[in-house]
Amino acid sequence: MNRSRISTLLFFFIAITLFDAHAQSGGKSLAEKLGYPRDSKLLMVHADDVGVTHSVNAATIMALDTGLVNSASLMVPCPWFPEIADYAKSHPAVDFGLHLTLTSERVSYRWSPVASNDKVPSLLDENGYFHHDWTATTRIDPKEVELELRAQIDRAYAMGVRPTHLDSHQYRLYENGKDLFEVVLRLAHDYKLPVFVARDWFADHPYLETSLTSADIVLDHTVTIAPSVPPEKWTEFYKTTLKNLQPGVTEFVIHLAFADDEMKAATRERDTWATFLRMSFRAILFLKAFVRMECRHVGST
Amino acid sequence: MNRSRISTLLFFFIAITLFDAHAQSGGKSLAEKLGYPRDSKLLMVHADDVGVTHSVNAATIMALDTGLVNSASLMVPCPWFPEIADYAKSHPAVDFGLHLTLTSERVSYRWSPVASNDKVPSLLDENGYFHHDWTATTRIDPKEVELELRAQIDRAYAMGVRPTHLDSHQYRLYENGKDLFEVVLRLAHDYKLPVFVARDWFADHPYLETSLTSADIVLDHTVTIAPSVPPEKWTEFYKTTLKNLQPGVTEFVIHLAFADDEMKAATRERDTWATFLRMSFRAILFLKAFVRMECRHVGST
Repeated sequence: MNRSRISTLLFFFIAITLFDAHAQSGGKSLAEKLGYPRDSKLLMVHADDVGVTHSVNAATIMALDTGLVNSASLMVPCPWFPEIADYAKSHPAVDFGLHLTLTSERVSYRWSPVASNDKVPSLLDENGYFHHDWTATTRIDPKEVELELRAQIDRAYAMGVRPTHLDSHQYRLYENGKDLFEVVLRLAHDYKLPVFVARDWFADHPYLETSLTSADIVLDHTVTIAPSVPPEKWTEFYKTTLKNLQPGVTEFVIHLAFADDEMKAATRERDTWATFLRMSFRAILFLKAFVRMECRHVGST
Repeated sequence: MNRSRISTLLFFFIAITLFDAHAQSGGKSLAEKLGYPRDSKLLMVHADDVGVTHSVNAATIMALDTGLVNSASLMVPCPWFPEIADYAKSHPAVDFGLHLTLTSERVSYRWSPVASNDKVPSLLDENGYFHHDWTATTRIDPKEVELELRAQIDRAYAMGVRPTHLDSHQYRLYENGKDLFEVVLRLAHDYKLPVFVARDWFADHPYLETSLTSADIVLDHTVTIAPSVPPEKWTEFYKTTLKNLQPGVTEFVIHLAFADDEMKAATRERDTWATFLRMSFRAILFLKAFVRMECRHVGST
């Protein structure tokens, strides 16, 4: 098998293949557990922030329908969640996780917890929305986080979504200490869902590795574009990143939207965002074409 | 003074002129209390549902900035309220009331109470949003209504809005019994704000008249277009309605939006809505031009 082979995966596939088989798999890599050679290059193209606006929903549905992305995750507290929950309900084979959300980071357009506000005071700003951001003085209560995240997961199930995995909006549950990571891990175990964790993060946050059990699935790498990369460098970024893809399972995290009036207004505090979004859609088209080309190339050797 | 004179008013103007002067005004009509002859035709052109989407905000701001409407009211629980609250804060002379909201009537896009969900269970559907609609079996607790509406008014003040009046989304607080109307009336008195009530409604809902005190301001008439009027008849509707305007203060209630992707998706369960909205914007342009023409005509006689 050629070392440069790139295959695309779904969380759904990972979960059903591995979730009850971990005890027998010993020292095998994730690729091997999935039935691939140890040095395979396996790729998930994952759309984040779905449900946040209609624009993001419409772009993501287009990308899913045309095969441009093969995994996505949903923000339950956001106002447009019902639109994408309805799509998820009528497309049960699509790989939708829950993008567990504890912040409301826009300025003109805001959302609040699913749980009762009076049960989660540490998560709220002075107007009753989720905090715009967490600063050095923001004290987040892990018990309130757990209560809110259970409410998000329960609402998703109640509205017909059958999530394939859990992940964390703005990486808040990974980068803010062991207590918060243990909340998401406990939820993952309780609801029997994999949580998106990448081995790449262990060096910066050692508690991630020490909190995980042998039952947990760990992806090898994740790639997302940094805000410091200017739009005109996006295509080059994806091309270089794909060419340098390491063996193992990589998740490409992508943010899709149309550059329409709603999205421009929702992100107006960041004036490059509309261009950025338009570019991200072009980049993903390019990315997918590139992956297909690579796969065809491998197939013919 | 010519009987056909049409002047435009603001709630703001009505409130500051009348709110502390009612005791001295005896049997005078509202027009007379405002300093106009008894048979004057006074008009407010009022935009509803502001804050519900970015599209509605953008259309309403355009209409306010260009003088097409002279009054509007804001839906505090809606996700785009922060955008219009920010505009209201920086435009303190604009006549913004609060469009007190107890329902979430769209399908793909939903909102929830401002108060803690567990404090207002009778207002919630099974997923924690406001009810889509109230049916014969929906039991709404007036105490919960009061708690929720105080939370909406308090959030508006906290976010810098200085409301000129209160009114009710979908007329829910007028058409559902004396108890709910007494809630909004109590809030109006507590916060020293006029509540939009029209004498036209007294025949259908006698408790409106009996609940009011001599301190309350009552408009004479209200006009809004019925969903049964097809878009191609809108211009004719407005023209006829304006020509037949009765003496007294009339509020024209208008719903503005752009027929863009966000608004089409938000109202997709109602497939004529996008056209309807586009037409409503044209109709208001026509309406304002007509009012100006009439005023000029009166001015030259």
